[in-house]
Amino acid sequence: MERVAIIGASMTQFGQREGWIMDLLAEAGIECLEDAGVDSDAVEHLYVSNMASGEFEGQTGVMNALAHDLGVMPAYAQRIDQTSSSGGAGIYAAWQSVASGASEMTLLVGGEKMTHCTTGEATDIIASIAHPAEYKQGVTLPSFAGLTARHYLERFDAPRESLAKVAVKNHENGVDNPNAQFQKEIDVETALESPIVADPLRLYDFCPITDGSAALMFCPESVAAEYTDEYVVVSGIDGATDTHVVHEREDPTVMGGVVESGRGAYEMSGREPEDIDVAELHDMFTILEFLQMEGLGFAEHGSAWQLVEEGYTTRDGELPINTSGGLKSKGHPLGASGVAQGVEIYEQLIGEAGPRQVDADVGLCCNVGGFGNCVITTIMEAAQ
Amino acid sequence: MERVAIIGASMTQFGQREGWIMDLLAEAGIECLEDAGVDSDAVEHLYVSNMASGEFEGQTGVMNALAHDLGVMPAYAQRIDQTSSSGGAGIYAAWQSVASGASEMTLLVGGEKMTHCTTGEATDIIASIAHPAEYKQGVTLPSFAGLTARHYLERFDAPRESLAKVAVKNHENGVDNPNAQFQKEIDVETALESPIVADPLRLYDFCPITDGSAALMFCPESVAAEYTDEYVVVSGIDGATDTHVVHEREDPTVMGGVVESGRGAYEMSGREPEDIDVAELHDMFTILEFLQMEGLGFAEHGSAWQLVEEGYTTRDGELPINTSGGLKSKGHPLGASGVAQGVEIYEQLIGEAGPRQVDADVGLCCNVGGFGNCVITTIMEAAQ
Repeated sequence: MERVAIIGASMTQFGQREGWIMDLLAEAGIECLEDAGVDSDAVEHLYVSNMASGEFEGQTGVMNALAHDLGVMPAYAQRIDQTSSSGGAGIYAAWQSVASGASEMTLLVGGEKMTHCTTGEATDIIASIAHPAEYKQGVTLPSFAGLTARHYLERFDAPRESLAKVAVKNHENGVDNPNAQFQKEIDVETALESPIVADPLRLYDFCPITDGSAALMFCPESVAAEYTDEYVVVSGIDGATDTHVVHEREDPTVMGGVVESGRGAYEMSGREPEDIDVAELHDMFTILEFLQMEGLGFAEHGSAWQLVEEGYTTRDGELPINTSGGLKSKGHPLGASGVAQGVEIYEQLIGEAGPRQVDADVGLCCNVGGFGNCVITTIMEAAQ
Repeated sequence: MERVAIIGASMTQFGQREGWIMDLLAEAGIECLEDAGVDSDAVEHLYVSNMASGEFEGQTGVMNALAHDLGVMPAYAQRIDQTSSSGGAGIYAAWQSVASGASEMTLLVGGEKMTHCTTGEATDIIASIAHPAEYKQGVTLPSFAGLTARHYLERFDAPRESLAKVAVKNHENGVDNPNAQFQKEIDVETALESPIVADPLRLYDFCPITDGSAALMFCPESVAAEYTDEYVVVSGIDGATDTHVVHEREDPTVMGGVVESGRGAYEMSGREPEDIDVAELHDMFTILEFLQMEGLGFAEHGSAWQLVEEGYTTRDGELPINTSGGLKSKGHPLGASGVAQGVEIYEQLIGEAGPRQVDADVGLCCNVGGFGNCVITTIMEAAQ
């Protein structure tokens, strides 16, 4: 089967934005068409990764509205929801649309408009991802993160500072990302002294609430060559679920969806963890960066914190993680985040990551839905 | 490329149901696993067609919850939203998952829980499908239907009774469908004397608000043979958008999405309108059955009403349409409807439609999102 290529990418400024969801989606969509050099009438499928425009803004049908706004009609349009991993699910859907032969040019646009809601409203909407048996008792996603972090730190004798260092690293990367919500360095002390959110986690262990959009353009590799010499291929991709009731999991420090989706993506690509040169992980909470590093085989179980302490995951380390700034400093507009991970890896692989550039031929994204309820892992490679 | 087969189907009782969305999805999902004879651990991808569980019930993450409830973990799970054509979009997504090689066993479950809302609440949620420039002026989907119906009747000199006869036919079919919301015959007079909703359309020109779920099981044809001799193949499928702002369309009696998706499905299958033996059309409003008959090439533009008058589309006519009872009498739980269309065609093609059985080897479903904003057409054939 022919490989699926990515030939263009874009992302809007992430942060607190004016307007509504359609403005954000259209901005990223138009920029991606331009970046890829693709005419709007060449687009055959349009996927919109968006978790909850209906809940956040009372607006549904965003994929049809975007098809109209971008002038891609009669292109097929569909919305993809996989909660916080909607963007990664969009990459999987776009990949399937091309790999199945259904489309020769697929535009994926992910986006979410959230900052007009109060934190309470947004947290309520996001909490409804989880099983009612848990969230109706008040166990929201930040609570799970706090419980997991305490367990991890005690069980593996990890210092509290190691979590703060994830935030410090990702903020440092965000400084060089002009589209990041926060372009501001922080130090370990600031992180450790910030207000408690879910003990032992504090404000700087959490991603912000964000508005933003990101886009990618997919086509068969034979078509890519008509547009550009600089493209990447999706060499491996898989998604997997874990229990929807989080407390039923055998080991709270193992995310089954990460392990299974990673296994599938490695197998499909013929790659191993050692082959990965750069990765974007889903650091919605700092503790998640540890769990994904371990679940994806970058670190032994219980030892990711040591790699972080050693600087293994900084931009000049062995395996740079979240060079974009991650969800932590770039921001986390739910439907956009997984797409934006792909945008960062795409730019790293074609050498257009500017001051964030690292030396990379093979990259990986891991996008986590819920508290690991569904996870998508994607491996991309620079075209040779 | 290997063809994609459907090896099992199910639907719940449609109507006013107790419980919440997860009860409905699980009921259809379990029944489909049983019908297909597939173990839950053989399922690799799970798609849930659902437009708005977040808006209707404050519950998101339904695909992850269903993966848990059905015990199909670590199967990949994703929600499909294409507004009222979410079910058809689910068929397309399931087809792509198998055709791309991503999954060898894909379960599609569509469902919606709506009747606990007031009609006003439900109408508001559904109206948000449309462009705000229209719905914020009060032009909801029923209004579009009324405007289109008046234009059609006057322009093509069609009698008002012809629309009522669509409702009468579909109610007559619904009598023989034990899962239909209404199992009650009506006559033309009853339809014509029912309360006005959007002039000239009256109560019996509209589908009801419904709770329900339906499911289909997809796999490559080579895998199907391991499970059963009686299966169908998806020989053609395509989706297409039309303008999101309805009043921008050149001709209000032509739904571009129907025409384009039909053209794609015919081309892929090598079939023509004359080859279709049975069809399920999206009769959310009676006028839509005319527009789809014409857009899909079953009738000349402006003449579908004559075929209905002649009895061409009854169960003993040349081309039986909506043998299931259609959305009109079976009901229209948004995310379930397109899947349930597929269930009816599947049952007709394998000869298990009971008292509704017609003689058919090739069937077609047309699922309409919004007011034709996005449309999916699927052609299925009995395996030989």
